[in-house]
Amino acid sequence: MSALEASDLAPGLLLGEGVQLGEGVELGGNVVIHAGTRIGDFCVIGDSAVIGKQPMLGRHSTAPREQPSPATLAKDVVVCPGAIISAGADVGAAVVIGDQAQIRERTRLGSESLVGRGSAVDNDVTVGTRVKIQSNCYVTAGTVVEDEVFLGPGVILTNDTTMGRHPAGEPPDGPTLRRACRVGGGAVILPGIEVGEEALVGAGAVVLTDVPARKLVVGVPARELRDVGDDELLERWA
Amino acid sequence: MSALEASDLAPGLLLGEGVQLGEGVELGGNVVIHAGTRIGDFCVIGDSAVIGKQPMLGRHSTAPREQPSPATLAKDVVVCPGAIISAGADVGAAVVIGDQAQIRERTRLGSESLVGRGSAVDNDVTVGTRVKIQSNCYVTAGTVVEDEVFLGPGVILTNDTTMGRHPAGEPPDGPTLRRACRVGGGAVILPGIEVGEEALVGAGAVVLTDVPARKLVVGVPARELRDVGDDELLERWA
Amino acid sequence: MSALEASDLAPGLLLGEGVQLGEGVELGGNVVIHAGTRIGDFCVIGDSAVIGKQPMLGRHSTAPREQPSPATLAKDVVVCPGAIISAGADVGAAVVIGDQAQIRERTRLGSESLVGRGSAVDNDVTVGTRVKIQSNCYVTAGTVVEDEVFLGPGVILTNDTTMGRHPAGEPPDGPTLRRACRVGGGAVILPGIEVGEEALVGAGAVVLTDVPARKLVVGVPARELRDVGDDELLERWA
Repeated sequence: MSALEASDLAPGLLLGEGVQLGEGVELGGNVVIHAGTRIGDFCVIGDSAVIGKQPMLGRHSTAPREQPSPATLAKDVVVCPGAIISAGADVGAAVVIGDQAQIRERTRLGSESLVGRGSAVDNDVTVGTRVKIQSNCYVTAGTVVEDEVFLGPGVILTNDTTMGRHPAGEPPDGPTLRRACRVGGGAVILPGIEVGEEALVGAGAVVLTDVPARKLVVGVPARELRDVGDDELLERWA
Repeated sequence: MSALEASDLAPGLLLGEGVQLGEGVELGGNVVIHAGTRIGDFCVIGDSAVIGKQPMLGRHSTAPREQPSPATLAKDVVVCPGAIISAGADVGAAVVIGDQAQIRERTRLGSESLVGRGSAVDNDVTVGTRVKIQSNCYVTAGTVVEDEVFLGPGVILTNDTTMGRHPAGEPPDGPTLRRACRVGGGAVILPGIEVGEEALVGAGAVVLTDVPARKLVVGVPARELRDVGDDELLERWA
Repeated sequence: MSALEASDLAPGLLLGEGVQLGEGVELGGNVVIHAGTRIGDFCVIGDSAVIGKQPMLGRHSTAPREQPSPATLAKDVVVCPGAIISAGADVGAAVVIGDQAQIRERTRLGSESLVGRGSAVDNDVTVGTRVKIQSNCYVTAGTVVEDEVFLGPGVILTNDTTMGRHPAGEPPDGPTLRRACRVGGGAVILPGIEVGEEALVGAGAVVLTDVPARKLVVGVPARELRDVGDDELLERWA
């Protein structure tokens, strides 16, 4: 593991080599920041957060094994207590990462997005700007989340229909969530599914087929119920 | 962020200004307690717990922005390792807060209630006495949970049918869970739903309409199956 | 709570009495290891992990109250940042415990198994070898998980149909997951259910009845859809 040293910059702070802290960064207690991490101006890092975690893969993990680049946080990022951000994560300006959340390697979060408390954004995920991921979600490896998407609490995305029984080296088949779609609390999205622009997935739905743009789907398995109305479109509310 | 200083009262302890610790409080390692927090007699605080966390809201959060009052823990509260309790939370006597759980601002937990491991009780929630919230639940902002309610593991409550597309300042429309109702594991409750006294929601149900008192509902969407029997009422077992 | 003392072995490390660390153990920052814990050769323990947590049961918990034996980690175990392992847990060789996961007392994890990020394996659970528990799962007390089982993300297991309204002292009625079965993301398994060898539970299914070996079940409630094909059996892929 990379070397850490106690620092006087904040109580209980441990820093790796070459950490770059911008202007006006605020640090809570017992924060750990690993070697090479770059933290932008005016970021706020909560108690017991861990930033720049090095990979700790098990023998059988299929995640890539190259040494990731350092974690990078742009300006104005808020990392709440107990959150863990891996080396190789790229966090955009004014992103908020909730308490006890997790962001993994080679994942990119666009500016002003929110990752809710206890949620995980796995490796190799692309998240756009102003995305809201509520609490206790799981965003699986290989997912694409476009701008302004909303995930309700406890949404689960999946990326492997075989559950491990496929040739080695197959890339994860994460869902694609198009611009401004909304996914209700507790919904489950199957591997490779595309949820269209401005589509709406009802709470608790299990989505087995692609959802066309502006359609509302509900149920298990999810079925089309109606179109999303003009008065519900993002342009009306943003 | 509020100032923290290392304290000799426990290993790795960081304390803010004016923290009040009652008689016989036990503290684990690397605990962080923020300014003004009041911890009652004989509370037990586990390793790496954070108490009195100040608000760290993102730009777009709709949660209120007044400075909260300090966190208050009554006597005999148990806070397990890695749990995070926000300033403005009011925790009743003999409450147990599980490992890695989260309690937010302006939320009130009645005495002898349990918040299970990894569960989140969001801001502005009222929880009664002897409530049992099992592991990995999400209790959304604005929820009312009356006495003796039981939530199975992974229950998800929601509070916004529009998923963010509503006039600013609308209060969250959390569910109301009446006295001694029970909600099975993995169930999803939609915004504003009332689950009646002694009602029972089956595991995995998605509840779209109010559940009358003493009714059992199951399925997606949840439908009435039968009455809850006399032999299942709380008075028989409490 | 058991006494902890700062140690120079790693930055921010707190150790209880009589902790045994094997050869080549790597320790992150702010790790807490409680009295008597035995950590095998070449284990890697991430930042802010807590190992050997003593019981902190509430008044009303039905979990047994004997003082557990120490936590034991065999060789080559990886414990990621923020994970919590209770005293009395028995972790097999080369197990990986993900970020912010939890393992409880009297639970046994077989070698080379994985407990994903944010998942909880409750007390008195037996997990076989090479089991994969993905992220944000809840494995309830009393569950038996045989070798090579795969749980997708957000799977919820339950163990009490009465939700607390039963005679005191009844053992938890956790499910039994037979060898090499697979459970899709977000599925909910009811108390006492047996999922057969090489069976497959679809994502989002709610399983109310036993699943025969090699059957695929889907939906709410889960119903048999077809047999698992020869080309999907573990022997083809292991």
